[in-house]
Amino acid sequence: MSYQMFTFAVMIEQKPTHTSLSELGEFGLIDHLTAGIAPQHASSVKGIGDDAAVIDTGDAYSLISTDLLNEGIHFDLAYVPLKHLGYKAAVVNFSDIYAMNGTPKQITVGIAVSNRFSLEALEEFYAGIRLACEKYQVDIVGGDTTSSRAGLFVSITVVGTVEKQDVVYRSTAGEHDLICVSGDLGSAYAGLLLLEREKAVFLADPNMQPDLEGYDYPIERQLKPEARRDIVALFKEHGIKPTAMIDVSDGLASELLHICKSSGVGCSVYEEKIPIDISTITLCDSMNIDPTTAAMNGGEDYELLFTISQRDYEAIRKFQEVSVIGHVMDAGSGMNLISRSGQAIPITAQGWDALREEENLDF
Amino acid sequence: MSYQMFTFAVMIEQKPTHTSLSELGEFGLIDHLTAGIAPQHASSVKGIGDDAAVIDTGDAYSLISTDLLNEGIHFDLAYVPLKHLGYKAAVVNFSDIYAMNGTPKQITVGIAVSNRFSLEALEEFYAGIRLACEKYQVDIVGGDTTSSRAGLFVSITVVGTVEKQDVVYRSTAGEHDLICVSGDLGSAYAGLLLLEREKAVFLADPNMQPDLEGYDYPIERQLKPEARRDIVALFKEHGIKPTAMIDVSDGLASELLHICKSSGVGCSVYEEKIPIDISTITLCDSMNIDPTTAAMNGGEDYELLFTISQRDYEAIRKFQEVSVIGHVMDAGSGMNLISRSGQAIPITAQGWDALREEENLDF
Repeated sequence: MSYQMFTFAVMIEQKPTHTSLSELGEFGLIDHLTAGIAPQHASSVKGIGDDAAVIDTGDAYSLISTDLLNEGIHFDLAYVPLKHLGYKAAVVNFSDIYAMNGTPKQITVGIAVSNRFSLEALEEFYAGIRLACEKYQVDIVGGDTTSSRAGLFVSITVVGTVEKQDVVYRSTAGEHDLICVSGDLGSAYAGLLLLEREKAVFLADPNMQPDLEGYDYPIERQLKPEARRDIVALFKEHGIKPTAMIDVSDGLASELLHICKSSGVGCSVYEEKIPIDISTITLCDSMNIDPTTAAMNGGEDYELLFTISQRDYEAIRKFQEVSVIGHVMDAGSGMNLISRSGQAIPITAQGWDALREEENLDF
Repeated sequence: MSYQMFTFAVMIEQKPTHTSLSELGEFGLIDHLTAGIAPQHASSVKGIGDDAAVIDTGDAYSLISTDLLNEGIHFDLAYVPLKHLGYKAAVVNFSDIYAMNGTPKQITVGIAVSNRFSLEALEEFYAGIRLACEKYQVDIVGGDTTSSRAGLFVSITVVGTVEKQDVVYRSTAGEHDLICVSGDLGSAYAGLLLLEREKAVFLADPNMQPDLEGYDYPIERQLKPEARRDIVALFKEHGIKPTAMIDVSDGLASELLHICKSSGVGCSVYEEKIPIDISTITLCDSMNIDPTTAAMNGGEDYELLFTISQRDYEAIRKFQEVSVIGHVMDAGSGMNLISRSGQAIPITAQGWDALREEENLDF
């Protein structure tokens, strides 16, 4: 093989851009790049296409998931304290493991920073990761720390475990199952919009004090989310195994589509049943946003969306932190949001999409 | 908790930079940030401070390692074809698992790209990852694909396995052990310098064709390294277990220091025994670089540096691909390179340091 040839070609040719990434969107891109990838090892039980990969380690399954967080795309250090960022970066990974009905055990932390960051800034970031790890009993076992030409880039990989008979995938929802969600939705997105608004006010006039009065809840949901370990513990305690599960990172609409498409089913979800916190409704009203839109398309709630067999309804209805919001239909019925007026509105993926977001950025 | 307070503080205060990251360097920074982190789970057998973390999964150990590769820091797309970059990004992770005497089985691939990249460019990158995975029989089981504001960021996490009795750490080299290295050293660094030189020539005059004649080997070592699966297989075949092992990613000097410091020992390594390829020597001569410096401080060779008990010498000397380069001493003897003239030169860490490199960059 002669490197003369191709290195020359690389240096000379400025290849034209063919297909832009934003045409595909994040999920389209992942599907495209990973098409045809089939695991060779029997231990690779489940690969791409769920909250975590599933690896057979003999007695149990190991669960592995990786998340990237990039400055300017996923967070804005103008209003995100680094300690909160570290906490959130860890917790959103734990959430992926809970979404498989598992327990997070270890993480590795990769960070790339420009020399704009001081040691003290990174200490803050690590303090947040450590706090999350203490709270959720997860060990930091490795990582990589390096430099970037600009900005902060975080890559966390979480390893968890689950008993083989307990693992829950996205793709196994059955017709007539009930659709449930933990906690409430839309607050993290409302909190983000509020922080963005106050940042704009601040940039226009640095003497203006941000007006966040009364909105601690949506702001906390945005800056310091928690993962639903408690719900997974309740499942175990009550002997319930969801038929399918996913965490709400990109918005209810996007997650419902993931479950329905991979399970080959449809769904009806009732707008009036979607749990939304009262301060979030007030905040949405003040910003002229429909709270249902925040819940459906906002994302970053890190609640668990799951389906259960109807026979588990009596047990689930006693869970104060769980709302039944609809039911699974046959694929032919489509995926619909039933509005308060009874209208069936097809659910489309308008969740937060990192690759489309980028179109707004200046290069 | 009131978010009013701290968000206000974050927005108003432009904190001065306290301690610059380059003062600490990469390893100093990792040590500082992870000081006092102690695993809580019994399954976390080995955390930060080796090529991979070790997790007890019952019958065997799981090995986990993460590496970040950032454009402008770790690679320059002016002369690194994306397919080679994908291949290398995967292989350097496999190398971390072989350095634990294990077998890589699965990877997750995180990439963040700016919209300067086309779909076809990412396909090339993925084709390289897939090629490496096919060759080394590793499954791609997950990942995250998102956008960056500028440049390409790659984060790969590899999962491997090793029988419990076979795992080899850095920290267990014993006095009188022999120090061995696979293959040859310094070529990847010499190849990098050559590519950098020809890039400079090309930028000065785009009509000049890069002069890479006769240097296929060092260029291939830089652009398309391989991991030493064969050496680990030889250990198994001959019933040899190294007493300590690490892969050569940052240069022989840096890796010797890692083994010696974590094992609490010293070493003598003989300059004349360090294996260096003849075309690399010629190339170094043409660029006025000492080949020994390239081997000691260059890095990216991805060879295995290991120590063996003297009783394994007869077996090891038959391995054509392994050189015995020195021996382990007591800590008091220090860590020395014995020059061709017999002079003992203390070994210091001048390996490639991503965080110091950054000082040369413009922000």
